[in-house]
Amino acid sequence: MNQSHQIDLSRYQVRTDLALERHQMAIEEHGGEIPGVHIEEQNIDGIHFSKMSVTTEEGSQALRKPKGNYLTFEAPNLKQHDTELQERLSYFFAEEFHKYLKQLGISDDAKALVIGLGNWNVTPDALGPKVVENLLITRHLFELIPDQIDEGFRPVSAIAPGVMGLTGIETSEIVSGIIEKSDPDFVIAIDALASRSLERVNSTIQVADTGIHPGSGIGNKRKALDQETLGVPVIAIGVPTVVDAVSITNDTIDFMLQHLQNQMDIRNPFTKASKDPENPKYFLGLIGSLTENEKRQLIHEVLSPLGYNLIVTPKEVDTFMEDMANILANGLNMALHRSVDKENVSSYTH
Amino acid sequence: MNQSHQIDLSRYQVRTDLALERHQMAIEEHGGEIPGVHIEEQNIDGIHFSKMSVTTEEGSQALRKPKGNYLTFEAPNLKQHDTELQERLSYFFAEEFHKYLKQLGISDDAKALVIGLGNWNVTPDALGPKVVENLLITRHLFELIPDQIDEGFRPVSAIAPGVMGLTGIETSEIVSGIIEKSDPDFVIAIDALASRSLERVNSTIQVADTGIHPGSGIGNKRKALDQETLGVPVIAIGVPTVVDAVSITNDTIDFMLQHLQNQMDIRNPFTKASKDPENPKYFLGLIGSLTENEKRQLIHEVLSPLGYNLIVTPKEVDTFMEDMANILANGLNMALHRSVDKENVSSYTH
Amino acid sequence: MNQSHQIDLSRYQVRTDLALERHQMAIEEHGGEIPGVHIEEQNIDGIHFSKMSVTTEEGSQALRKPKGNYLTFEAPNLKQHDTELQERLSYFFAEEFHKYLKQLGISDDAKALVIGLGNWNVTPDALGPKVVENLLITRHLFELIPDQIDEGFRPVSAIAPGVMGLTGIETSEIVSGIIEKSDPDFVIAIDALASRSLERVNSTIQVADTGIHPGSGIGNKRKALDQETLGVPVIAIGVPTVVDAVSITNDTIDFMLQHLQNQMDIRNPFTKASKDPENPKYFLGLIGSLTENEKRQLIHEVLSPLGYNLIVTPKEVDTFMEDMANILANGLNMALHRSVDKENVSSYTH
Amino acid sequence: MNQSHQIDLSRYQVRTDLALERHQMAIEEHGGEIPGVHIEEQNIDGIHFSKMSVTTEEGSQALRKPKGNYLTFEAPNLKQHDTELQERLSYFFAEEFHKYLKQLGISDDAKALVIGLGNWNVTPDALGPKVVENLLITRHLFELIPDQIDEGFRPVSAIAPGVMGLTGIETSEIVSGIIEKSDPDFVIAIDALASRSLERVNSTIQVADTGIHPGSGIGNKRKALDQETLGVPVIAIGVPTVVDAVSITNDTIDFMLQHLQNQMDIRNPFTKASKDPENPKYFLGLIGSLTENEKRQLIHEVLSPLGYNLIVTPKEVDTFMEDMANILANGLNMALHRSVDKENVSSYTH
Repeated sequence: MNQSHQIDLSRYQVRTDLALERHQMAIEEHGGEIPGVHIEEQNIDGIHFSKMSVTTEEGSQALRKPKGNYLTFEAPNLKQHDTELQERLSYFFAEEFHKYLKQLGISDDAKALVIGLGNWNVTPDALGPKVVENLLITRHLFELIPDQIDEGFRPVSAIAPGVMGLTGIETSEIVSGIIEKSDPDFVIAIDALASRSLERVNSTIQVADTGIHPGSGIGNKRKALDQETLGVPVIAIGVPTVVDAVSITNDTIDFMLQHLQNQMDIRNPFTKASKDPENPKYFLGLIGSLTENEKRQLIHEVLSPLGYNLIVTPKEVDTFMEDMANILANGLNMALHRSVDKENVSSYTH
Repeated sequence: MNQSHQIDLSRYQVRTDLALERHQMAIEEHGGEIPGVHIEEQNIDGIHFSKMSVTTEEGSQALRKPKGNYLTFEAPNLKQHDTELQERLSYFFAEEFHKYLKQLGISDDAKALVIGLGNWNVTPDALGPKVVENLLITRHLFELIPDQIDEGFRPVSAIAPGVMGLTGIETSEIVSGIIEKSDPDFVIAIDALASRSLERVNSTIQVADTGIHPGSGIGNKRKALDQETLGVPVIAIGVPTVVDAVSITNDTIDFMLQHLQNQMDIRNPFTKASKDPENPKYFLGLIGSLTENEKRQLIHEVLSPLGYNLIVTPKEVDTFMEDMANILANGLNMALHRSVDKENVSSYTH
Repeated sequence: MNQSHQIDLSRYQVRTDLALERHQMAIEEHGGEIPGVHIEEQNIDGIHFSKMSVTTEEGSQALRKPKGNYLTFEAPNLKQHDTELQERLSYFFAEEFHKYLKQLGISDDAKALVIGLGNWNVTPDALGPKVVENLLITRHLFELIPDQIDEGFRPVSAIAPGVMGLTGIETSEIVSGIIEKSDPDFVIAIDALASRSLERVNSTIQVADTGIHPGSGIGNKRKALDQETLGVPVIAIGVPTVVDAVSITNDTIDFMLQHLQNQMDIRNPFTKASKDPENPKYFLGLIGSLTENEKRQLIHEVLSPLGYNLIVTPKEVDTFMEDMANILANGLNMALHRSVDKENVSSYTH
Repeated sequence: MNQSHQIDLSRYQVRTDLALERHQMAIEEHGGEIPGVHIEEQNIDGIHFSKMSVTTEEGSQALRKPKGNYLTFEAPNLKQHDTELQERLSYFFAEEFHKYLKQLGISDDAKALVIGLGNWNVTPDALGPKVVENLLITRHLFELIPDQIDEGFRPVSAIAPGVMGLTGIETSEIVSGIIEKSDPDFVIAIDALASRSLERVNSTIQVADTGIHPGSGIGNKRKALDQETLGVPVIAIGVPTVVDAVSITNDTIDFMLQHLQNQMDIRNPFTKASKDPENPKYFLGLIGSLTENEKRQLIHEVLSPLGYNLIVTPKEVDTFMEDMANILANGLNMALHRSVDKENVSSYTH
């Protein structure tokens, strides 16, 4: 088998921008904890929240993600358009994001520039521009009428620079030009992401202090936006909005195997038949004997020549995007301006 | 196996509105030609065109589609945003659709009402409303200034009635009310469809003289729109814009099997190993021994409790919909008005 | 003068759909109260509210408006995008509109059909469609799951039928077809109106139980929608969104005259010079000697051949329309469903 | 009278961004040709085309416009949505704009950056962003795949930076940052303008090599964008889309006077009564004795306290903007890329 397939692991990369998924994959591969990666998790009222730190080069390589601090908010029921959960997530995000800024040494009056990445003409890629439309923008007021601004606000500016196909200019160039002229203390970059799992699409928010790097994500749409290139801290906020067909198929095959094993156990409660190492092979034949990566590689190999390896998004993409953009805009307005709170936040978005 | 799974075939229905796919599935099941179904096919310049007639009750039951005449236009390269192919398809569609109307006994001055079904707030469901926006509407001119209208036009009216969740009224009720008042000779109903195959999404147009029936398609969004309920012939035009996760996975497993068999043959050119009936089992284990329907049923069973059986659409849904709506609007403007032709058609859409 | 101009009063019609403005014009012309017209007015917190009844044929002719009951809500500061005033107006409108329905004998469980008139592609004409998008639609739930509906809701359906140029069908025909099939107890028709005064544009709501009649308003876009044609009571809700250049000029000339007279009085406090009947002539020459209608007629005569008699809307039309549509949608949701109130209304619009 | 009014000419500025209108006003005031201003005019097929050079400081002060070269294209029938005129204007604009660039020493391979100024959420202000959406963007191709680009194209980049209320940053700062990073040879800045005349709204295009300066135009939305601030030539392209109520009224009063004088002459063909200097006073009283500026000032004084001095746009603003944006995008695509011509231009816009 291995001879015949000679899977080149370097060729197929699982498309995911989520550190949490990289971590799961690393655990699957390495069969245990990853050195240099620390995770804390909690569940609050329908929200699964995890903080992950990648502290060593070894951890970074295992996850193929830069060293840094990652927050992940998961709320699967967002897909049921649960408005109370939306509000809860928005408040919770605001609190945690505010703490996160503090821990990075970013004070309450540090000047923020928010970059809404992505293409506003492509619904699943329009998260950044949609969030930016609903932010409370104040930088110009601090410049023009500083003495008329109440306590509890900070200078916030924002732009949705578009993608290179629309502008002809690398997004990183546009952003670094604007930073030089407008002199923010830190940057928040918002982007739509790819996930390996349909389940996480439009129900997960990832925050990272690592900036944004090319080659990851939906497409290779920009060069790096990080502290090194921009000169100020860059905090990336992303929401997975798409998934590729390889991931959908691979996950489903895994689910099928689990399902068949469970059924076997139910019928034979006293044997531990499902633990039998021959088991996957029994259910899935040769496919069952492949490693995770070999399986994905095979699926990729099969789908690509058929022009079939599409990236997809749920049919309800319009409302999902609308909901997520509102959660993030409200969350950011509260986190960035301490005078914006649960009582008045809705009057700042439209 | 069969004991343990007891797959209830009635429960899982493959989601497809395409007669062509139903036909393929019927052939897969029955293992040969379907009585009462006739197909003619041709390939012209990147367009695969097929005419299918379902003439007997038996054929209808085998396909789970009503008796009638189906046209299918497939142009896989539409996904490459090939503007010349778009034009070609538009002209070819116009010609064939015009012939089709003639064969149904619908003359060049018969009054048309075009119904754009679907929800304009849901991008992959907005095909109907988008087409309707770009039609050349003339009925009111025939009513108000009949002597100022040139030769080669017919009375065309159109409406996008919305979906029941937006209006509170069954779409079929709205449409039948409008028909009674505006008295068209025939109805064209345009709708977004579901396909079982990602490949056909946004690259296929189906025409059928059977009307539109509830329970099929993306959701159960209306009661029947057909000659029986509306009193005039109803021609349905549909484009698949979504596919469910079950279909994606199932197709991919099939492709994997084919792929592995091909590789086996390449390596062992003189044996016909790939024809060995034990073969699917070798590659896919127990899964390989399931029939098509058992396999789909299993996948469905696995995905549903995970909230994972989503319906998806390609990430590029916005441009695909735009392109398809233009092809159809231009095609219909030419087919319905003989004075609209290749030279002037673009001045009627915006 | 009169000889030379021979102004044909029948030719130029002041473009206004507001009964209040018709009433003012009638008073200007007749120089006093109009028999058969009763008005009650009150000012509450930035809202000027008036109830007008036209009870006799004489009153109707003087106002060129059908007999009926008119409510007018004016809130000039809406143009300052005052969100608190928007909420107040929304609540106040809900209360008064609910009372109004009661007085017309329309009970809390009477079935409503809301018609959003106008063209969604023309920003100042899109009021109706925008309101309809944000209504709480329930009729289908009463049909499908009647026992799962809480107290305090009524069956509400809604449609934005488009304009004749888009559909090819008279709007009145579409609406009457839908009424026959869906059987509502009353109809609410929402439309953008014309005012004679820039001041009232986007700051005024008119309610009338007279239905909607062709030839009035922005354009002659439909035949009558009233109890006579539709068989059920028709309540019209309108907001002026446009004004014609004749009105702007005429008003300004009047304001100039007042202004000059005021200044004269300020300088000569003891004479009553401003009351001198020669006064308008002194300030405005021959123009000053024209009656209101002659003046408008002259302006119309001057502007028309120049292609200059345009209908205009404020530059800020997008936000004005957005704000007004929200006020009306929230107001209607509260007035029609007694379980929708200040606390929860915002969760029903998006 | 004059005492009492003491009109402060510095206070009220006629709102116009059109050099042509400034020139007309200067002629009205100075009663003759303006030194240092040269005009050439021609009429071609429904298009009035004028080239104006302001060559001296004196001319510049008389017109309150910077020294420079102005092109003005007027096509009043654009308002009739005449698609052939649109095409003609587009081709004519392309030719003249190309010549204009040559005369400014800008060669066919000079790198262009197009800035779409204005707020995309405000329909009459969205010209710039709409044009930019339809430009053929090539700069990134010259950077990434220079050897795959055919003859007859130049590097074009573009951005719609938004307005300060949306970004919190001066537009001039954003633009200058982008210029430093992307290094264009010249800039084209597209903006919606104010006119003093309803007639010119959405039927006029102005080109100027003077850049864009604050305080002029619809609002004070940016600091200067010109060669001095940006370091490269800046060519401004503008279309008037709004007009203020003062201008509408003032123009109409002027038209009324002309109209009355014409009628007088028609009735008394042998006297030259209309030339009688007492004439304006006879028709318009005291108002007739005011100078142009005094009259505008008075109207402004009257309207302002009434909150009535609104800026307005024609009701049909949506289609006007759409048409104009297409004319400019097509015109620019042809002028900037010599390989884009009448035959293929429409395939580059959508």
